[in-house]
Amino acid sequence: MEPGRVRLIDQRVLPGELVQVETESVGELCELIRDLAVRGAPALGAAGAMGVALGSIRGQPLDEAAEEMSAARPTAVNLAWGARRAAASDDPVAEARRIAADDVATNRRIGRHGAGLVPASGRVLTICNAGSLACVGYGTALGVVRAAHETGRSPTVWVPETRPVLQGARLTAWELTQLEIPFRLVVDGRAAALMADGLVDVVVVGADRIAANGDVANKIGTYALAVAAHHHGIPFYVAAPTSTIDLDTPDGRSIPIEQRAADEVRSFGGAATSPADAPVDNAAFDVTPASLVTGVITEHGLQHPPFSGSK
Amino acid sequence: MEPGRVRLIDQRVLPGELVQVETESVGELCELIRDLAVRGAPALGAAGAMGVALGSIRGQPLDEAAEEMSAARPTAVNLAWGARRAAASDDPVAEARRIAADDVATNRRIGRHGAGLVPASGRVLTICNAGSLACVGYGTALGVVRAAHETGRSPTVWVPETRPVLQGARLTAWELTQLEIPFRLVVDGRAAALMADGLVDVVVVGADRIAANGDVANKIGTYALAVAAHHHGIPFYVAAPTSTIDLDTPDGRSIPIEQRAADEVRSFGGAATSPADAPVDNAAFDVTPASLVTGVITEHGLQHPPFSGSK
Repeated sequence: MEPGRVRLIDQRVLPGELVQVETESVGELCELIRDLAVRGAPALGAAGAMGVALGSIRGQPLDEAAEEMSAARPTAVNLAWGARRAAASDDPVAEARRIAADDVATNRRIGRHGAGLVPASGRVLTICNAGSLACVGYGTALGVVRAAHETGRSPTVWVPETRPVLQGARLTAWELTQLEIPFRLVVDGRAAALMADGLVDVVVVGADRIAANGDVANKIGTYALAVAAHHHGIPFYVAAPTSTIDLDTPDGRSIPIEQRAADEVRSFGGAATSPADAPVDNAAFDVTPASLVTGVITEHGLQHPPFSGSK
Repeated sequence: MEPGRVRLIDQRVLPGELVQVETESVGELCELIRDLAVRGAPALGAAGAMGVALGSIRGQPLDEAAEEMSAARPTAVNLAWGARRAAASDDPVAEARRIAADDVATNRRIGRHGAGLVPASGRVLTICNAGSLACVGYGTALGVVRAAHETGRSPTVWVPETRPVLQGARLTAWELTQLEIPFRLVVDGRAAALMADGLVDVVVVGADRIAANGDVANKIGTYALAVAAHHHGIPFYVAAPTSTIDLDTPDGRSIPIEQRAADEVRSFGGAATSPADAPVDNAAFDVTPASLVTGVITEHGLQHPPFSGSK
């Protein structure tokens, strides 16, 4: 963030191109968020704060800017969390910078706490992208993999492509290639069969919101992985900063689930994948009940619900 | 099938175009099968017989033609079944025509036996395409839906798109549109969450091979549906002609699982979906153990393993 300007990697065009977009406008930043140029709960936390900082520079009332930012996407609670934190600060610009700087340190701590949960030469299954692109840096679920890699545990990663927006194929595969961590890309429907074949040791996913009772909203398909992991007795961990835990949300039923545009499912890369008028359900997230979650890896260590204000 | 020529709908270009391809050559027919111009276990049964019929017209030894046809795709046992039946016949051309004609009648019987398993206004989840395109006509799993529809049960259908080749989005959505049976298209990762949301009454899928012990090989993603259905106490039926039951295959471990080209996963419609060199596991099928299958709907009624030569 330069004074009055937010710059971010445009995740829509990866892995084909690595380009940045810039904006000076709260409205434009919201549009970039809705259009998934920036996505991932921790990254949205920083973006929410930066939007309020932009608003403050433009003389917009802070509460109004926070509300505008929070409304851009309903499920990921970090967006509202970051916006509220900046709006409550005397210096929203400094607060936004602090949130961004804290994020990387937080994720490294998550990684440190999680690395020991990955067995030596462990085969880790994840979903979507909970890597550095989803954060300001380092990553949450992929941060755990990175920390395991950095401490010599030699993890390998199964990467489900994560339809409809393919964050696994486009972003996680790209990040793991950069990091030189071995991985293999699969269609989402293959994950349960990989478990049956004895090829998965541990599942580690990110989260868009964790309710006080421990229910977890995350990318559509996460619940299917949790059910399959449970069926096979494979541990299922959620890696997320405590800012993703929303004590105001009692349980999963209270989490708003974003329905996105039908054309995300009906096409890819400009190519139709179905009849043009096919009716679609495109819920972007699902809820995994706390009973299927082995534990939540936060910056404070492995935690278990119910969550409360004290750690 | 005209004398010396096989004509079939080219399923590769649906739903964009409805065109037919023709061939007079066993080798070309095998190529069309490998390339998924024709797919679906019952359709492959007819195609296997027609290939041997083409070979017989060209003076090719029948056993050689049957072997060539059977090798085109390893998992769907109907291909080898049809080829063997034609090769064992005195008149392969007549036998191929008989198999094709029988297929539609068989599927209507499957539909009749299965319709009663669909509750009134039942929400049916399927996968891939086990419709008329997968057969000579009518369909197996979709045949059950059609028969329920024709007998006034008003079923609606959840259609997972079925990556990587999107037979759900491209073919099943197209067929249901033609049939005016209400459906909704979802990404594959949404299926388990639909069950958790109480939106699925019954799962009905096709099969590429059923082992003697009742284990079922079908499109990748089927096993994940079976695990999720089991978790939610939802009945999980397989609809298939008895020609899909292979008594020479004792169990699922003995079923060869076809690995297809990595680029099916790495791209769609010419658009890259991942880094170009991403390593891929593209197993086209998975195995659902008999213990997760509520029953197999064949032309003889609802059946349960173990299967034997007598009905």
